[in-house]
Amino acid sequence: MEALLNSQSEVTEAALAAIAHMPTASLPMLMDDAFTQRLTDADFMRVAVLLAQKSHDEGGCPIGAVIVDNAMRRILGKGHNTLVQENHPYNHGETSAIRDAGRRDFSQATLFTSLSPCEVCATLLHMRGFSRVVVGDVTNASGTELLLRDKGIQVDILEDSRGIELYARFRAERPELDLEDWKGVSATREP
Amino acid sequence: MEALLNSQSEVTEAALAAIAHMPTASLPMLMDDAFTQRLTDADFMRVAVLLAQKSHDEGGCPIGAVIVDNAMRRILGKGHNTLVQENHPYNHGETSAIRDAGRRDFSQATLFTSLSPCEVCATLLHMRGFSRVVVGDVTNASGTELLLRDKGIQVDILEDSRGIELYARFRAERPELDLEDWKGVSATREP
Repeated sequence: MEALLNSQSEVTEAALAAIAHMPTASLPMLMDDAFTQRLTDADFMRVAVLLAQKSHDEGGCPIGAVIVDNAMRRILGKGHNTLVQENHPYNHGETSAIRDAGRRDFSQATLFTSLSPCEVCATLLHMRGFSRVVVGDVTNASGTELLLRDKGIQVDILEDSRGIELYARFRAERPELDLEDWKGVSATREP
Repeated sequence: MEALLNSQSEVTEAALAAIAHMPTASLPMLMDDAFTQRLTDADFMRVAVLLAQKSHDEGGCPIGAVIVDNAMRRILGKGHNTLVQENHPYNHGETSAIRDAGRRDFSQATLFTSLSPCEVCATLLHMRGFSRVVVGDVTNASGTELLLRDKGIQVDILEDSRGIELYARFRAERPELDLEDWKGVSATREP
């Protein structure tokens, strides 16, 4: 059976949204390698942002991430922040994608994140051996790019304007949720 | 109905093991506040080590953690490493206990961990606002106590000899699993 998305298919927003929402293990049903290999870095960043949008639609924090192997460009894992959805104080986009990927060698993999990593995730990306991190939004966030580069990780900034706009809107709408996600419940109670 | 463990009950190893294995939300069925408040720091550390033992019995990494509120001494969350059990590249004892506790203010809480935290968890404990961390084993591990103290967290070392012995045995038995848990799959493949 030919995959729905194949060498003949266009890379559209609808295709990227379907990729974002499809469980990772089922992605081969959705697209074949010929299609996958045509996806650009900007396309993978779009998938991360569409995962952020999914989280926002669920009432959660709009941050998504996708892990791609460097050679075949296959998606190994993906996910989004689940602070609200799983009542989980620390499942950021990055940890969600890493959990989804499972126990793998990440040394030949790239993590695309819609938002600049927090310090915990930046430390984790180093400890799990990632070779490259692509960041879609350095406007709303923390500046851990320096920390990652210090540890020898290639960091590329690839801004996605709709992702930046989405996160800025979330911050304006739900400042207490943004603060909790970064600094914990205690920070939201300080005078 | 009176709880099984109450003001009349002895604090035994069997009692602590039952506490370790009981789901957190069901702990009030097992013990009342009068019993809880008699538990010492060393007892909570035993619970963390008994969680480490549970993980080891499941074929996983033997590291456990318990979160206790400072005022009432109630257990807010607990857990153990699930690298093997959940195929999860980063669910350490500390993150497992934090996930179990859910979205809470940890600024008046203490985390007991059977093993010195890794750098990712140490950063997380700071970002989630913990006031105190009690470490049961600084023999087998990393020295993040300095990092935690630098960030203003009270750190107490309360060694549990059976926990130290258990982790040393695990390291000797499963060195590749210990390495993966600390540094990722890629580290186990380096020449």
